[in-house]
Amino acid sequence: MSMPRQDQATPSLSDHGLDSGDTLMAWAHDLFPICRSLTGAGVRQTLSYLTNKVPGMTVKEVPSGTKAFDWTVPQEWEIGGGWLEGPDGQRIVDFDDNNLHVMGYSEGVDCRLPLEELQQHLYSLADQPDAIPYVTSYYNHNWGFCLPHRVRESLKPGQYRAVIEARHFDGVLNYGELIVPGETEREVLLSTYICHPSMANNELSGPLVATALARWLHSKPRRLTYRLLFVPETIGAIVYLSQHLEDLRQNVIAGYVLSCVGDDGPVSFLPSPSGNTLADRAAEHVLAHHAPDHLRYSFLDRGSDERQYCSPLVDLPVASVMRSKYGTYPEYHTSLDDLSFISAQGLATSVDMYRRILSALEANQTPANVFPCEPQLGKRGLYPTVSTKDTHAQVALMKNVIAYADGRRDMIALSEAVGSDIATVAPICRKLADEGVLTLS
Amino acid sequence: MSMPRQDQATPSLSDHGLDSGDTLMAWAHDLFPICRSLTGAGVRQTLSYLTNKVPGMTVKEVPSGTKAFDWTVPQEWEIGGGWLEGPDGQRIVDFDDNNLHVMGYSEGVDCRLPLEELQQHLYSLADQPDAIPYVTSYYNHNWGFCLPHRVRESLKPGQYRAVIEARHFDGVLNYGELIVPGETEREVLLSTYICHPSMANNELSGPLVATALARWLHSKPRRLTYRLLFVPETIGAIVYLSQHLEDLRQNVIAGYVLSCVGDDGPVSFLPSPSGNTLADRAAEHVLAHHAPDHLRYSFLDRGSDERQYCSPLVDLPVASVMRSKYGTYPEYHTSLDDLSFISAQGLATSVDMYRRILSALEANQTPANVFPCEPQLGKRGLYPTVSTKDTHAQVALMKNVIAYADGRRDMIALSEAVGSDIATVAPICRKLADEGVLTLS
Amino acid sequence: MSMPRQDQATPSLSDHGLDSGDTLMAWAHDLFPICRSLTGAGVRQTLSYLTNKVPGMTVKEVPSGTKAFDWTVPQEWEIGGGWLEGPDGQRIVDFDDNNLHVMGYSEGVDCRLPLEELQQHLYSLADQPDAIPYVTSYYNHNWGFCLPHRVRESLKPGQYRAVIEARHFDGVLNYGELIVPGETEREVLLSTYICHPSMANNELSGPLVATALARWLHSKPRRLTYRLLFVPETIGAIVYLSQHLEDLRQNVIAGYVLSCVGDDGPVSFLPSPSGNTLADRAAEHVLAHHAPDHLRYSFLDRGSDERQYCSPLVDLPVASVMRSKYGTYPEYHTSLDDLSFISAQGLATSVDMYRRILSALEANQTPANVFPCEPQLGKRGLYPTVSTKDTHAQVALMKNVIAYADGRRDMIALSEAVGSDIATVAPICRKLADEGVLTLS
Repeated sequence: MSMPRQDQATPSLSDHGLDSGDTLMAWAHDLFPICRSLTGAGVRQTLSYLTNKVPGMTVKEVPSGTKAFDWTVPQEWEIGGGWLEGPDGQRIVDFDDNNLHVMGYSEGVDCRLPLEELQQHLYSLADQPDAIPYVTSYYNHNWGFCLPHRVRESLKPGQYRAVIEARHFDGVLNYGELIVPGETEREVLLSTYICHPSMANNELSGPLVATALARWLHSKPRRLTYRLLFVPETIGAIVYLSQHLEDLRQNVIAGYVLSCVGDDGPVSFLPSPSGNTLADRAAEHVLAHHAPDHLRYSFLDRGSDERQYCSPLVDLPVASVMRSKYGTYPEYHTSLDDLSFISAQGLATSVDMYRRILSALEANQTPANVFPCEPQLGKRGLYPTVSTKDTHAQVALMKNVIAYADGRRDMIALSEAVGSDIATVAPICRKLADEGVLTLS
Repeated sequence: MSMPRQDQATPSLSDHGLDSGDTLMAWAHDLFPICRSLTGAGVRQTLSYLTNKVPGMTVKEVPSGTKAFDWTVPQEWEIGGGWLEGPDGQRIVDFDDNNLHVMGYSEGVDCRLPLEELQQHLYSLADQPDAIPYVTSYYNHNWGFCLPHRVRESLKPGQYRAVIEARHFDGVLNYGELIVPGETEREVLLSTYICHPSMANNELSGPLVATALARWLHSKPRRLTYRLLFVPETIGAIVYLSQHLEDLRQNVIAGYVLSCVGDDGPVSFLPSPSGNTLADRAAEHVLAHHAPDHLRYSFLDRGSDERQYCSPLVDLPVASVMRSKYGTYPEYHTSLDDLSFISAQGLATSVDMYRRILSALEANQTPANVFPCEPQLGKRGLYPTVSTKDTHAQVALMKNVIAYADGRRDMIALSEAVGSDIATVAPICRKLADEGVLTLS
Repeated sequence: MSMPRQDQATPSLSDHGLDSGDTLMAWAHDLFPICRSLTGAGVRQTLSYLTNKVPGMTVKEVPSGTKAFDWTVPQEWEIGGGWLEGPDGQRIVDFDDNNLHVMGYSEGVDCRLPLEELQQHLYSLADQPDAIPYVTSYYNHNWGFCLPHRVRESLKPGQYRAVIEARHFDGVLNYGELIVPGETEREVLLSTYICHPSMANNELSGPLVATALARWLHSKPRRLTYRLLFVPETIGAIVYLSQHLEDLRQNVIAGYVLSCVGDDGPVSFLPSPSGNTLADRAAEHVLAHHAPDHLRYSFLDRGSDERQYCSPLVDLPVASVMRSKYGTYPEYHTSLDDLSFISAQGLATSVDMYRRILSALEANQTPANVFPCEPQLGKRGLYPTVSTKDTHAQVALMKNVIAYADGRRDMIALSEAVGSDIATVAPICRKLADEGVLTLS
């Protein structure tokens, strides 16, 4: 699969009241160093930062041990530090240098052991010898250190000291929730996750873009209601669904998982299982016009919280528009996915893509003719007064919109029927509705 | 798009009791000079001529000012003559030379004015300097002259005299209607328009072909009922629909707009919006077998009364089979679309194409098996008496017809399932029905 | 159409408790010489042989003259011998040399006649001068001899003697039936025919493969019920349907006609008329994975008892998987379709293909999730305990199965959704069902 060329024009986000890519990069610098996990202080610190940016967003907590379908909310993880000391007393890796060095959700430990035994607790990547891999052990008791393969190869036989100052205890799982109410209760779900430690594209980019969209959604009245979730991946989505499933199934007309939206790679689309929900249709309509060379994945390639939102007994209409999809770029889930891997341009383009998709959903009412036969455009000043062979083309789009406004096609389908962009068709429909020729419902 | 080669064999229309292409050309010569418009004497003169050819056709009138959905029947237009006189007293253009010289539905005028002011009332085509364009101003008060650009360019500064002997008054809008009753009330609609002045393909060809078909439909009993309309374009169709909508929606199973059916250009198909009505299916079945190289347009390319018949709240199953489609040939809507642009051959081929389509609709009953399992063809003399490896092919089509006659496929669908032409399949079905093996309903 | 390469690996049938290709060839040698026809001793002798191989199979009889839809059970045909003697008293052809020499269902005759008159009773193939053609005259009184064209060409003028010791009388039509009951009444129909005299691929191969499958189906408990029919072609299927139609329509979920399954030609698939019944889906799923280069015919190419099973008022879900399809190979319906045309390898591969198809049907329950959201695989030992970027791939198929197990897709559809073979997916589903994560219904 060849990588499509990317549109390099920076979208003018300020015209639409959106934060700039540079602003998002500034937030990224603030948030990157925090050691996030499924639970704990890093998540709360992150949510607190974002709450300050987004009026109305609240931080929720769910106690450890709470049941959620087939799952149980895990204990909180507290990590104070961790290091590995060599036979010569030198520190080999230290959590303070990079929080990826300690395996996520690691047990506390303080012991001496020979290299041979230590090896079972070390994780590295032979084919990326300079990268620290991101490794977790959420649902099994374990401890470990992650380090560049090059460093691991240099370790000499002898006694090592392994110290991880960590503990697990009954606490809470936190997540952030924002409801932006609209004219109607029909709602759009945006979900992102805040459980990854110091990595940038997967995953700090999602919360950054979600925050920019949240601020924008607040900026003026909306037809639809928006629900934004900042949850720990998997368990956070499952816990939220277990407590809000009926609401979501009743109201959500489209949703997106925001992940891997910060780099300059190709725009990537991951559809829902059926591929024909409103979430798919809105995204694909916008991408067809504004990122025609995007990559289209299958739901088989999924990997984030659409796994929960689209599971058979949940079955929400959720898709995902990304840049370089998780699992497809070598820096993924390593220390190489750092702030240099994302860019102001990449973040801005993602914000703009989602702005277009949400705008399409906002506009997506169903136009229907008021009159049998064509309406008389001339008497409403909508038609040129002299008919020549040249004037036909001028009103063609307007007449096509009327011809296909059958009260069954929503505006996305209508736009596709007439071969145009909903951003072009929507104002025509509003004008025709103002003239009493169409209704919008 | 390359122009497909045309079948040059003249269809033997007389074998089917149809008028020849030469007959239609003779009618064309009679009707061409008449100055038609939406309303007025030219329309009545044309309808009177056609009524003499078609027993049972009646001319209707609807008073000016009558409401029709979003529209109102316009006033009658009476045109006596018109000319433009130059500073030197010479006549530059004269309605008596070509009725296209006066803008259609022009106001009356008699004034002197300088060239500069006159220019606002002149219409010509820079890229077709020898053509008089066809220009109308139906729904706005205006007057004007249409002339070759070459003539316009030669006009010298000075005072001009513009005379148009025209008036508008409360009168009637006329149209022709013919119902050919059949065994069933299910009906086929054929609609054409009689509002264009001296042009040949668009539009005199439609009424010519419709008239030939009307005479043929009368010639023997039919299963279906046929409704033929000769209306002024747009307003005529709208007025008719406003007064017959329920009837039409209840009975019409397929319809066609006859327009641009006189030249030797490629056969062109314009489908209904859905593209899968019976009108579409019958036409495409016939064209697949008899004009396989035809051009297929989209309903987005529409331009005649299918705009009304297929509008969302009317929604009749109407398509159009043409030769060179309006708007696609340079002579369109100019004085170059004259009698030399059409031909006896072109008209005859169109008549024959519609004969095939109407015959397909006549034949299009739904065959259904009488017996479970295959019927025994042998005892009915439908099967060769000795079975060898060669005889299998001989009855293959008949057996395929039986195998696919499931009471759900109509005969068009059955013909397509067995890969054959309904003109071949229909007699087989009738034979099998006569033998008590199939029913037709 | 180029002939696809065939997989030459002999399937290990014994691993599955199936008879070997060599065993089937031994049966073929026993059965080949018998002169079968629609009715009579040859059919009974054949069924008796097969009944000895298949416990539970019974031979039924239906009296001559019994009505069956549009048909009537024909009289029995008894053939004692037949020969043609030349002017010189030499026998030219003799039934004892090859039972194809006498036209099937021939009347008895003993007469002398000149060559010219005899020619009307001779059948040969000019383009296959060494082959004896297979000719029958079931539904018309006639007699005849079939012979190599080369022999026919050598016949000299003079008086010939034609003797056929045959008679027709009111007797019975026989067929074999086997029901292998399963847990459920939903059943699979396997039908083959036993009315062809000495030919091997069409048709001795079908009864051979059906017999091997019958023995295997008996070998262990089955979820589905199986109905195997060994009928004379056409009339046998029609008679059976006329007496069991309601049962079959109520219970049969998939069926196959076994014919031409003995040679080494390309695997050939003949779908049902709709092409989307369970019979089609199971066969095409298996062929996609295990004979991806198979030829796909249309139901228009049908030629055996699917003509009855799939007729519109019967409408059973029946397809056919063959090797070289009847009518496509030159040896078809001639003496060249002898035991050298089939092979142990060809028969074994067909048995194995049907074993896979029937196994797919056995496995084809509908899996459904028990929990909203993904189940927690880790706590059930279904998930690796440490999550790295490499471990994702290991459980991908299991997670895909869960993600698409929506209670609407049966296991074939689920396997296709996840891009895998049902033979791989079924054990995963059973494991997940054992773990309480899926239900199977």
